[in-house]
Amino acid sequence: MTVSDKGTKPSRRAFLKGAAAAGGTLAGAGAAHAAGDPVITELQPWMQQLGDGVDVAPYGKPSEYESHVKRRTVEWLTADPVSSINFTPLHELDGIITPNGLCFERHHAGTAHIDPAKHRLMINGLVDTPLVFTMADLLRFPRENHVYFLECAANSGMEWRGAQLNGCQFTHGMIHNVMYTGVKLRHLLEEAGVKTSGKWVMPEGADAAAMTRSIPMEKALDDCLVAWKMNGEALRPEQGYPLRLVVPGWEGNMWVKWLRRIEVGDEPWHHREETSKYTDLLADGTARRFTWEMDAKSVITNPSPQAPILHGKGPTVLTGLAWSGRGTIPRVDVTIDGGKNWHAARMSGPSLDKSMHRFYFEFDWDGGELLLQSRAHDSTGYVQPTKNELRDYRGTNSIYHNNGIQTWYVNKNGEAENVEVS
Amino acid sequence: MTVSDKGTKPSRRAFLKGAAAAGGTLAGAGAAHAAGDPVITELQPWMQQLGDGVDVAPYGKPSEYESHVKRRTVEWLTADPVSSINFTPLHELDGIITPNGLCFERHHAGTAHIDPAKHRLMINGLVDTPLVFTMADLLRFPRENHVYFLECAANSGMEWRGAQLNGCQFTHGMIHNVMYTGVKLRHLLEEAGVKTSGKWVMPEGADAAAMTRSIPMEKALDDCLVAWKMNGEALRPEQGYPLRLVVPGWEGNMWVKWLRRIEVGDEPWHHREETSKYTDLLADGTARRFTWEMDAKSVITNPSPQAPILHGKGPTVLTGLAWSGRGTIPRVDVTIDGGKNWHAARMSGPSLDKSMHRFYFEFDWDGGELLLQSRAHDSTGYVQPTKNELRDYRGTNSIYHNNGIQTWYVNKNGEAENVEVS
Repeated sequence: MTVSDKGTKPSRRAFLKGAAAAGGTLAGAGAAHAAGDPVITELQPWMQQLGDGVDVAPYGKPSEYESHVKRRTVEWLTADPVSSINFTPLHELDGIITPNGLCFERHHAGTAHIDPAKHRLMINGLVDTPLVFTMADLLRFPRENHVYFLECAANSGMEWRGAQLNGCQFTHGMIHNVMYTGVKLRHLLEEAGVKTSGKWVMPEGADAAAMTRSIPMEKALDDCLVAWKMNGEALRPEQGYPLRLVVPGWEGNMWVKWLRRIEVGDEPWHHREETSKYTDLLADGTARRFTWEMDAKSVITNPSPQAPILHGKGPTVLTGLAWSGRGTIPRVDVTIDGGKNWHAARMSGPSLDKSMHRFYFEFDWDGGELLLQSRAHDSTGYVQPTKNELRDYRGTNSIYHNNGIQTWYVNKNGEAENVEVS
Repeated sequence: MTVSDKGTKPSRRAFLKGAAAAGGTLAGAGAAHAAGDPVITELQPWMQQLGDGVDVAPYGKPSEYESHVKRRTVEWLTADPVSSINFTPLHELDGIITPNGLCFERHHAGTAHIDPAKHRLMINGLVDTPLVFTMADLLRFPRENHVYFLECAANSGMEWRGAQLNGCQFTHGMIHNVMYTGVKLRHLLEEAGVKTSGKWVMPEGADAAAMTRSIPMEKALDDCLVAWKMNGEALRPEQGYPLRLVVPGWEGNMWVKWLRRIEVGDEPWHHREETSKYTDLLADGTARRFTWEMDAKSVITNPSPQAPILHGKGPTVLTGLAWSGRGTIPRVDVTIDGGKNWHAARMSGPSLDKSMHRFYFEFDWDGGELLLQSRAHDSTGYVQPTKNELRDYRGTNSIYHNNGIQTWYVNKNGEAENVEVS
């Protein structure tokens, strides 16, 4: 197997000269290359006829040819569809921004459809002056804009006990990455005046699930946002419209949607979502609690089980995503032979704190079997562990916080499969 | 008029303590504050009933309460709707990312709906080997990700002859800002091998308009991208699906959509869109041509004619956007009194090359009349001029490249209007 190192440009020219010389025959090295490629000389209808004019949508939508690009659910994963999950199709995306229509979402009582004129945010508990804000009130506070990833603590959770789900949409798709606009929670807490005894906050949702979580005051006063926009426009209903909490770098369950109340207290509440759920059961029967920060993690999105190599041997682009709840990702290593040789991936796009990072690795595929893995390094020096390294510490009872290295096996046909290598 | 300087926090506390103490009466300083605010004690339906469960959209859409947030057209602006324009609702957005559904679009023969399997990109003309690429071929080249603004050269063009259109959606909405994924045009040209005599390229569209423009080889080899994704997902049909040219910092008309061909030549072609259109007619009857770069510009998006101040006196957030085709925007000045006093705005969000930048200015509104203006400084030291400074050089025959300072007049009711101050 020949692997080009970073910076060495694989020779595409030899490939393409033979394959795609204009006016000649296209000897099909790529899947789309039919011999003779009649498409070159076909006059397509869109070249001859006027397109939509009057009816360009006031709010646009994707091409009809992209209907396969969608969130998907796994029906057996929750007891009822009103308590369910829709996964981001990571293998269909590129760059670092998740478009709003494709953002992972988890709901516990269905998606609430809230009239913003009838929505209020209350701050109460251990404060000098309990306050209630309308949406209009919030627009009078200084705003900030940040791109943050939101990852469910259960992302990759099925994989604790070995390779299970066949596709990065399902193994790693409980995540999205958008630009939020909102006010720092700190500003609102300062407005109410937190009493000296106030050490924790409890955000609460306005949907029928009334989600609650305990967050230490230090985090609340640091970088949490009360946000109303994602990627420039209003939050989507399934993302908490009109208001959600943003808890940068911490598990998604804490980012309470449909946010209606922030209670200030002197100790954590130990509600359902931080006791029977979102704790990590260890092999000895004890449990880790308050495991809020999302550790550095990465996944190869292409090639992957849902995105096989279709073009045969030769120049191949491998790409993926990496993120850390503790900072940026200065480096990702990639192997195509199951860890015998590691290569520095090429990072592309802005490197932002607690955001997804995009990486690429270009190589010449020799047509043989591959074992693809990626390994993220974050700005604290933390290195993404193997799944077995995690299991040594945490056993296999856990559902949450699996940030182990993912492996895809690629066969000689370019088809990929979720596997584990020991 | 009391104006708080940058860094001085306006006192919201006094306002909100009176206005929104929980359980008490809400003496309506904000528009949403009805006396007594019955909403606080109402149990809304979304708190009591399960929301959508089964039918969370595989491809999501905005809340029903956001239906007013849409692209709009101005019917008299073009002779026929198949040659028309849809403007970005800048006053409804925040941050720097334009969501794909709301991106400005200009089409010259309607929106083409292209089957990507039948789309090809040809490189021909003064090259060693003419080439034809399928979409699959392009995916085998190294990709890059960049956030760039696209601005039509005619943006604000109506304003050359004085204040015309009442709303930043119409005066400044021929712009959007997204993250593109694609391959550098340089890689494709190198693959074909540009002959020594090849000094220009001509991109051509596959729609019925077959848009063409001449671009100097230096720019083509510098930062132009052949892009297929915007904000992570496939280009939208009205943005050139499946392929468009990205010409960072240069006028939008050159960013050829539905890109099917790049011809390499030894001189510019002087086609329609660079002779009768997209040249700047001066007062003496001569015309500036090849005015490709978009100069530094800014606009206040809120308050603005479509987004009046509804909350009365007191803490007020002013916000807007700034951009430059030559680099970043390190500084924006803001005035609320028509230029008597200028204040440094607070920049928020990533500062990226040839991207939009978001600025804010928080002040205490005394309820009097305002004259709002913003003035961008770019990283080359260029300062956004007044409209009259531009007219001194270019007269008023132009349609294109008006980057003059915009003024909004705000009356005592908080209503805003497009005006000019001399």
